[in-house]
Amino acid sequence: VSALPAEIIRKKRDGDRLTPAELKSFIAAYLDGGVADYQMSAFLMAVYFRGMDEEETAAFTDVMLNSGSVVDLSAVPGIKVDKHSTGGVGDKVSLILAPIVAACGVPVPMISGRGLGHTGGTLDKLESITGFRTNLSLKEYKEVLAATGCVMIGQTAEIAPADKKMYALRDVTGTVESIPLIAGSIMSKKLAEGIDALVLDVKTGRGAFMASRERSRELAQTLIRVGKRFGKTTTALITDMSQPLGHAVGNWVEVAESFDCLRGKEVPDLMEVTYALSALMLRSGGKAVTIAEGINRSKDAVQSGRALAKFREVVGRQGGNVEFIDHPHTYPVCKHIIHVKSPANGFVGECDALAIGFASILIGAGRATTDDAIDPKAGIMLLKKCGDRVAKDETLATILTDRAETAADAQERVARAYTIAPDAPKPVNLIHEMIDEHGVHEW
Amino acid sequence: VSALPAEIIRKKRDGDRLTPAELKSFIAAYLDGGVADYQMSAFLMAVYFRGMDEEETAAFTDVMLNSGSVVDLSAVPGIKVDKHSTGGVGDKVSLILAPIVAACGVPVPMISGRGLGHTGGTLDKLESITGFRTNLSLKEYKEVLAATGCVMIGQTAEIAPADKKMYALRDVTGTVESIPLIAGSIMSKKLAEGIDALVLDVKTGRGAFMASRERSRELAQTLIRVGKRFGKTTTALITDMSQPLGHAVGNWVEVAESFDCLRGKEVPDLMEVTYALSALMLRSGGKAVTIAEGINRSKDAVQSGRALAKFREVVGRQGGNVEFIDHPHTYPVCKHIIHVKSPANGFVGECDALAIGFASILIGAGRATTDDAIDPKAGIMLLKKCGDRVAKDETLATILTDRAETAADAQERVARAYTIAPDAPKPVNLIHEMIDEHGVHEW
Repeated sequence: VSALPAEIIRKKRDGDRLTPAELKSFIAAYLDGGVADYQMSAFLMAVYFRGMDEEETAAFTDVMLNSGSVVDLSAVPGIKVDKHSTGGVGDKVSLILAPIVAACGVPVPMISGRGLGHTGGTLDKLESITGFRTNLSLKEYKEVLAATGCVMIGQTAEIAPADKKMYALRDVTGTVESIPLIAGSIMSKKLAEGIDALVLDVKTGRGAFMASRERSRELAQTLIRVGKRFGKTTTALITDMSQPLGHAVGNWVEVAESFDCLRGKEVPDLMEVTYALSALMLRSGGKAVTIAEGINRSKDAVQSGRALAKFREVVGRQGGNVEFIDHPHTYPVCKHIIHVKSPANGFVGECDALAIGFASILIGAGRATTDDAIDPKAGIMLLKKCGDRVAKDETLATILTDRAETAADAQERVARAYTIAPDAPKPVNLIHEMIDEHGVHEW
Repeated sequence: VSALPAEIIRKKRDGDRLTPAELKSFIAAYLDGGVADYQMSAFLMAVYFRGMDEEETAAFTDVMLNSGSVVDLSAVPGIKVDKHSTGGVGDKVSLILAPIVAACGVPVPMISGRGLGHTGGTLDKLESITGFRTNLSLKEYKEVLAATGCVMIGQTAEIAPADKKMYALRDVTGTVESIPLIAGSIMSKKLAEGIDALVLDVKTGRGAFMASRERSRELAQTLIRVGKRFGKTTTALITDMSQPLGHAVGNWVEVAESFDCLRGKEVPDLMEVTYALSALMLRSGGKAVTIAEGINRSKDAVQSGRALAKFREVVGRQGGNVEFIDHPHTYPVCKHIIHVKSPANGFVGECDALAIGFASILIGAGRATTDDAIDPKAGIMLLKKCGDRVAKDETLATILTDRAETAADAQERVARAYTIAPDAPKPVNLIHEMIDEHGVHEW
């Protein structure tokens, strides 16, 4: 006798464990219409409050994973490793990291998402490169990976359709911020793309979806446990997202900053996180024994120009205009350039990632609703970051936009995102800790 | 700027208070399609976990009340009083109570519901009287009340349509058992029917929806506070529903037991609850000063035959066949009569109302799904109740059904509902306490 949908919902609501069979039949029924959207949303809210234990989270992930295709990348030699970030502002790490890791000989099959809320999305950034195709078929996805050792696409209709349907529902029913639901959503997609190992960048701080360290660690540990159950080595860094990463926030401006970094520009916070993640990926991919070795190899890939060449190769294979990589200043520019000035002499105490993220939506660099179009050239350049000394009336940030009507609002938001203190703030730890299946490690 | 549906859901999910304006716009949008079923069900689940405070519950009730018509009974002289029960097994109190109270001069406008889960419904019981119309228009409703002082109908399309839509959703999304949602649902319907005062029978024990005393009291207090805010004197009794009330469980069999009681038959537990509620209604309706006086007047209405005559009059006005009142034994009988025997000498220790309720569904006296038809003549006669002495093989209960295929299962369930103990059990308190706006009182 299979349980009625309302019985499954009540069971979860009352804090009881659901069996893998119950989760499977409930979600299968959701996909074929036997469980209505209104029942799934009540279920998701019950999960929000009651959570899921390890067995349930794994079963939930398994059902979502097997709702679609699981890509077989065994024909591509090497240990395939991907990175996933829980989302931040100015987080263009994937664009720099993937070519570095691929240039070091570890294949990187990467399926990315779009901007969500105040955070940017790798897919939107890639699409700011004229002609770049993120909607490859799974066949093309395999071909590009085999040819270049790196591929970057969006979620296809074949990958975890249950997650796709459920994610849209979660977004409009206030059920996004649940660790087992986030874990099931991330891991089902990552497991479907054919990887052997996964490195996670779990953000914490005001600009992250999980603001507290405890919740970020809990999410990381859940993801690692699920990964382990599916035989995929999963390692996580907990990194700071209280201020944006690097100087550029937007789409094209972030791609351009990524080129700069691949050309060897030292953007300290951005490259510290990038090299740390890269080292973990090289270690998982068997191309470095220690983290120090992984960092050295990664730096060498940049300094030798191999990483930039790899990025150029991937962009070319996926239809992007490589002219913009070689000559970024030929890219179209915005009509309005607005400077945000420092109100005082002193030091930048804070540069609030959440506020900058919302300002970037206003100027066209992000979406207010899922149907909005993005202006790829709009962005915010943060000339000053935490700890920088500033003089009164010195420019803190520059806003690039075509939208005259939102400029004043954005300018005020950016100004308020900054606090100027008389003394230099205590430096914050950028990488809080490393977590793997053996436990939590100092970085 | 009005909030997005997902923002309202998240606010409730995070434990914040919603303003009356937010609740109003959310529910209004639900009725006109701006809030989808899947958003309402996520909201209802969030309310299940987070509750609502007094202001929110009142605002919620008000929005549901004003989603439809509010009947104006000012043309009918007297203080109009209704009773509401939270639902039980064998609970035919309304059928006996309404004629008694009306016979004592207090008008009783009663809108009842159908059976829900394992509990019976007054509407289903009334409809077992051949020809009885429960679907009167609001115009007829007023006319019958004005002419007889009593009317008994079901919820019309004009009464609290928001509740009707939401109730159907709650039933299939595991969001029924929430005190503010129950309070809003009950009170919006009761306030819409045009009453001046309300008496509540809040059930507690295994056969009740609220099994614990604390939760039953909390529900009663919530209902009373909402009633007070809307200017309606509301009084509650907390009564035991660990065993069914009276001897008959079903539809016609309960109507027949009600006739018997109106003819003066002493069914102790049933009449103790009926007279207690009746006394409170007479006091609220200005026809008794003390509870003792109310009980005496009620007993006199039965002993004089006025209550039975009133019931006969109302049945006649609403199209029912009064022949069955005068000659109940002419009603059709079931094909199968199955006896459940005592396995031992001793005393009845328990007669589980929940188990009897589920058995009554099996034999056709209730519904497994909302589309099921009810067999009005099916029922269970409990010959022995808690505390009764029984001999081995003496009949404990008799099952009346046309469904041969479910008889064995029902027989086993009824047998298991009984426990036979060697010693007489401690008598249970039938009426636990009385609650009004001044506090909790011993009965």
